[in-house]
Order: sequence, then C-alpha cells, then structure tokens
Amino acid sequence: MSEIEELTKMLVAFRNERDWEQFHNPKDLAIALNIEAGELLEVFLWKNSDEASREKVKEELADIFAYGLLLSHHYGFDLTEIIKEKIATNAEKYPVDKSKGSAKKYNEL
Amino acid sequence: MSEIEELTKMLVAFRNERDWEQFHNPKDLAIALNIEAGELLEVFLWKNSDEASREKVKEELADIFAYGLLLSHHYGFDLTEIIKEKIATNAEKYPVDKSKGSAKKYNEL
Amino acid sequence: MSEIEELTKMLVAFRNERDWEQFHNPKDLAIALNIEAGELLEVFLWKNSDEASREKVKEELADIFAYGLLLSHHYGFDLTEIIKEKIATNAEKYPVDKSKGSAKKYNEL
Amino acid sequence: MSEIEELTKMLVAFRNERDWEQFHNPKDLAIALNIEAGELLEVFLWKNSDEASREKVKEELADIFAYGLLLSHHYGFDLTEIIKEKIATNAEKYPVDKSKGSAKKYNEL
Repeated sequence: MSEIEELTKMLVAFRNERDWEQFHNPKDLAIALNIEAGELLEVFLWKNSDEASREKVKEELADIFAYGLLLSHHYGFDLTEIIKEKIATNAEKYPVDKSKGSAKKYNEL
Repeated sequence: MSEIEELTKMLVAFRNERDWEQFHNPKDLAIALNIEAGELLEVFLWKNSDEASREKVKEELADIFAYGLLLSHHYGFDLTEIIKEKIATNAEKYPVDKSKGSAKKYNEL
Repeated sequence: MSEIEELTKMLVAFRNERDWEQFHNPKDLAIALNIEAGELLEVFLWKNSDEASREKVKEELADIFAYGLLLSHHYGFDLTEIIKEKIATNAEKYPVDKSKGSAKKYNEL
Repeated sequence: MSEIEELTKMLVAFRNERDWEQFHNPKDLAIALNIEAGELLEVFLWKNSDEASREKVKEELADIFAYGLLLSHHYGFDLTEIIKEKIATNAEKYPVDKSKGSAKKYNEL
C-alpha cells in the first residue's frame, strides 16, 4: 500500500469510528478545506513570510491535506495520477520560454 | 523514493525550470492555495454535492495539493508524519464516545 | 431611504427579476462571498500591494459587498448597527494602551 | 455625511488610535477579509442554512464589512458607486430572458 493510500485509510477509519460519514458530503468537505485554508492564511496575516509560525503552518497544512484526502477518496481519485496530469497540463499552459521569470497568468503571457 | 517525495520533486523541478522560486515565498503560496480552495468551492456553488462536476473537482484538488506540497517542501515537513500527528491530536480532541454521530466542534462537545 | 437600504433594494430587485431567490440560501451566499474573496486575493498574488490592479480590486470588492448585502438582507440585519456593535466589542478586546502599534491578536496581548 | 462615510470614519479612527495603519496595506486587508469570510463559512459547516447561528453570521459579516470598508477607503472608492456599476455590468452579463431561473454562470448561458 502506498503512503497516500495508507493515510487515506487512517483518515477514513478515524471518520467512520465517529459516524461522521453522514456529514462528509463533498460540498461540506470543500467548505471544511476552505476554512482550514483560511486558518493557514491567518498564520501570515500582518506578517512577512519569515515571521510566520512554522508550527502553526504545520497544523493547518495537515488539516488541509486531511480534508483533501477525504475528498479525493470520495471521488475515487488517484492523487498521484491527478497531480501528474495537472503538471502536464500546466507545462503546456506555461511553456518555459514564455513563462520563465514571469509571474503572469497563462492568459496574460 | 516515496510517492509524495516524487510528486514534490516534480513540482519543484517544474517551478525551478521557470525561475518561479522568487515568487514562491510561503505567504504567497498560502494565498495561492486559498485561491484554489475558492475555485474548488465554486464547483459546488448553488448546487447539491451530486450536481457538482467531478472533473472540475479533480482539477481544483490537484492545484490545492500542488501548492500544499510546495509549501510543505519549503518548510521541510514530512507530510505523512504531520498528518499522522494530526490524527493523533484529533483522536484526543474527539474521543469516540463523546463525538460519535455529532458534528459539534471539540470545544462544544 | 439610506444608501445601504437603497443598494440592498437594487440587489434584491436584480435577483428577483431573475428568479434567483431559490438559489440564494444563506449557506450558498456565504460560499459565493468566499469565492469572491478568493478572487480579490488573486489580485495580489505574487505581488506587492502597490503592484495590484486598483480596477480589479474594485470589481471584486463590489461582488463581496453585493453578496454581503444580500446575506445581511436575508437575516434582516441593520448593517450600520452591526458594524457599530463590532467596533464597540473590538474596543474592549483591543484597549488602546495594550494594542497600540501591535499586530497581535487579542488573546495574545 | 452618508452612513458608509460615517462607518468608514469610525473604522479609520479606531485603527489610527491603535497605530495599525502600518499593518493595513491592501494585500493584508484582502487576507484579513478572506480569513473572516472563512469564519463566516464555518458557521454553516456540516449544517443546513437554517441550522446556522444567526448571531455568529452577524459577527462574521460585521468583520467582513469592516475590512471591506477599510480596503475601499484605501483606494478611495465610492462604495455606492462601485456596487451600482457592478449591477449594471451584471445586467448585461445576465439578461433576464436568458438567466431567469438558471444558476448557470454567464459564460455557460
């Protein structure tokens, strides 16, 4: 079993022990992920990157990944696969010669 | 090399080929992750969970994981480790007997 | 009629002409507001504040206010009232002598 | 002085008494607004609209408006004006005959 499968299995077991599957529809999982993303953002509020607490980033990132993995599990995605696909898509949207050193969005390149 | 290490390596290579490291400070990576989280949410807007496009969820989830992995890489986190720690913490916050079948937050249990 | 009442009336008329009240439950309005907030954030991504487009900020801010006013209308809030209350609450949480020049959250002061 | 001008004046006075203008660059104000938007979303998590706490919605909405007004003040926007402009733009994007009763985005109509 891969790492991602193992983590997903642990998260699903944790959830099912608590009978929380009834709440975990994809819409609410997406909401939950957004809430955690907002908490991650709070770690950086009024600060430079290097003033932010590494420990807090760690906490919030773990929460984001947990909801992301549950959402991915719901749809039966192979996470490794979908990230590789995305990298391939982005390689076309952002060819090296056009995008090198530029922060522009692909539709402005 | 684990899956997560492999994905991270691919994402970092993609980024470095484009000289984007200069933009990828943790604060902006957290912002980028939030923007993608908002796009994930948009897939569900005015809809029930089962009306949302599986394909679009896939796209947005891949983006969220990509920024999450880059952020995790920046801080040198072992993602498997931090998710396991979070599960352990949550097991204490949400003991099965108190939280079973309840959607309440730990501080309201 | 006050400005806020007038704006709200216009937004509600626009919505009702299109029979959109059926979609505008508070949960989806809160989701819509979050999506717009994410779009506002995108105006600043990989940038300093002064590099962000004033025009785009204007667009996104208008959307955020529009959903905020519709949400406020749904609950029958008097917006002026609730903001004044919030200022009063924050004045207690952040007394001038403790919070002056500090970006700390009230529970860390 | 209009309501919106009065509220803005109060928010700016509150901020300046605490010497917080130094933190209130537009990028961080946009971040702050997003954090509050995430907190608004949390009021609805795992719930139907009618199970959400009206009181908590009120609190979070006041915070969102407060940061929105400060951001608007920074750029010197006339909020009434920009919302009216947005309604006019949306009336073109969403003509009544095409959009009536439909939750589709303008580019899918």
